[in-house]
Amino acid sequence: MSVTEFDIIRRYFARQPVSRKDVLVGVGDDAAVLQLPAGQELLVCMDTLVAGVHFPLATPAAAIGHKALAVNLSDLAAMGAEPAWATLALTLPEPDPDWLEAFASGFFALAGRHGVQLIGGDITRGPLSATVQVHGFAPPRQSLLRLGAQPGDRIYVTGTLGDAALALRLPESAAAELRSRLDYPEPRLEAGRLLRGLASAVIDISDGLLADLGHLLEGDDLGASLQVDELPRSAGFGAALQRLDSAPAGLYYELPLSGGDDYELCFSVPEHSCAEVERRLGELPCGCTAIGSIEAQPGIRCYLQDGTGYQPRETGYLHFAGGAHG
Amino acid sequence: MSVTEFDIIRRYFARQPVSRKDVLVGVGDDAAVLQLPAGQELLVCMDTLVAGVHFPLATPAAAIGHKALAVNLSDLAAMGAEPAWATLALTLPEPDPDWLEAFASGFFALAGRHGVQLIGGDITRGPLSATVQVHGFAPPRQSLLRLGAQPGDRIYVTGTLGDAALALRLPESAAAELRSRLDYPEPRLEAGRLLRGLASAVIDISDGLLADLGHLLEGDDLGASLQVDELPRSAGFGAALQRLDSAPAGLYYELPLSGGDDYELCFSVPEHSCAEVERRLGELPCGCTAIGSIEAQPGIRCYLQDGTGYQPRETGYLHFAGGAHG
Repeated sequence: MSVTEFDIIRRYFARQPVSRKDVLVGVGDDAAVLQLPAGQELLVCMDTLVAGVHFPLATPAAAIGHKALAVNLSDLAAMGAEPAWATLALTLPEPDPDWLEAFASGFFALAGRHGVQLIGGDITRGPLSATVQVHGFAPPRQSLLRLGAQPGDRIYVTGTLGDAALALRLPESAAAELRSRLDYPEPRLEAGRLLRGLASAVIDISDGLLADLGHLLEGDDLGASLQVDELPRSAGFGAALQRLDSAPAGLYYELPLSGGDDYELCFSVPEHSCAEVERRLGELPCGCTAIGSIEAQPGIRCYLQDGTGYQPRETGYLHFAGGAHG
Repeated sequence: MSVTEFDIIRRYFARQPVSRKDVLVGVGDDAAVLQLPAGQELLVCMDTLVAGVHFPLATPAAAIGHKALAVNLSDLAAMGAEPAWATLALTLPEPDPDWLEAFASGFFALAGRHGVQLIGGDITRGPLSATVQVHGFAPPRQSLLRLGAQPGDRIYVTGTLGDAALALRLPESAAAELRSRLDYPEPRLEAGRLLRGLASAVIDISDGLLADLGHLLEGDDLGASLQVDELPRSAGFGAALQRLDSAPAGLYYELPLSGGDDYELCFSVPEHSCAEVERRLGELPCGCTAIGSIEAQPGIRCYLQDGTGYQPRETGYLHFAGGAHG
């Protein structure tokens, strides 16, 4: 007797930690039926993780379940939204019970922490990949967009940069802390909501700081200067870099600038709101760090502490540029 | 210079036929921002098509674009919903311009006919697959569910069954009409909306009539009897079956019962509403046909015209049962 899609849904995805009152019909019909809140706008985003492209083949199933949801919640965080519902399209070579159990546990642990209910999806046979779509809400006209930065605005990032990219270069046993930044990124949802009404533009960093800051700037035809010594690096990052035998020179700068997979927020703040932003985000574990400022001249210019220019070697992850990412 | 995800979105997915007023922020930010209608419920569904599993590798790109959206709109049709927005997660081995142009043309031609705007998604590198999520609306408590059939209700299907499954068994040059049923299924959205308030339960047929009718019955622990000579077959179906050299016996019954890929609606109607359903759907090109009735005893029983029982060989598509579907 073969395992069907319906068996898998019943066995692994029916028990979930969140049960929202606005879900009138959840998993199991042709579509989910949802009650809409008055006076809110709906935010929707969708991201796919492909095995061997977005995560190493050896990644634990629980981490894949976590990360498939986390990268989407990170997009909602960058909009300042409150998450609500998720759908999951999971493509699997074969239905391995242990793998499915672990994937679901990783997915639901994160969903539970943020009040997100799984409302539907699809399970298909094929090369391993997971596409998640999340839905969230924000008050009218309060979503944080990529557009809106102004010359003179200060540029900040939450948390630390480069940890995930460094973890990929280390043996798996080393640096468990860095590896958890790669496998279990924490979407900065609370930081995003605290930025409503204060940040002029926000994006989340998935492809690397330079690439994603570039997207924030390009719509307004702006540029930026970055102080690359100021980029926030974790204690574990510095220690692991010391222990790398043959680290190519410049990793200390390159990984935070273009390593990617950080899932931190990068945002611009008008001068008069910087103190309030620093106060609010200073109360969160991730905090925030000023790293540069928006300029009228297009392009991103990097500077060392002594004021000399720094020329980055990479500018970030190009999706079809060849070479597996992750 | 490599092609990036952003180039692809700009080149192939930026020009689209539908521009809805309720899309405040569409493709291009971290998430879409959407205005919600008052007094409506939101319906959400998501389906994945994997190359070699859900469609033959030789399928034209325009057909894949059409079908990836159509199978989702078919789910909304089965709920009686009005479609509004779609997201697309497209995974591609490489960005072939001709392929992308054709895929987008197939997707947008169907989207345009039903007023659906693409609001976001993701383009990734990997084995070919397309996941689409669609969003639609229905008035409160008027969505058509799988639950709700009652013993004595008549069972109907829209259109004709078995065409797509037969097309898969024919050389590509033969039977263009049948092949278009396989490659370009038409979601029965208008039929679904006309069934609001009349049908007691509705499902769309993707895995085959027996499998999907089974899903409609199982939640209420009901059964059904089917008149297998009454199953609607197209003129092209009968003619092509005649020309098959070595058709296994029983295809005349088996393909409409379990071939799958029909994307017709199967629904139950209380006796007192049957005349009104037949009048309403009789005005659509697809029409509808009564094929049996709901019974209290679980299980599906098939009968020939002379009243003798018919035992189907297959019961429908099992998602992990081995053997590529399509």
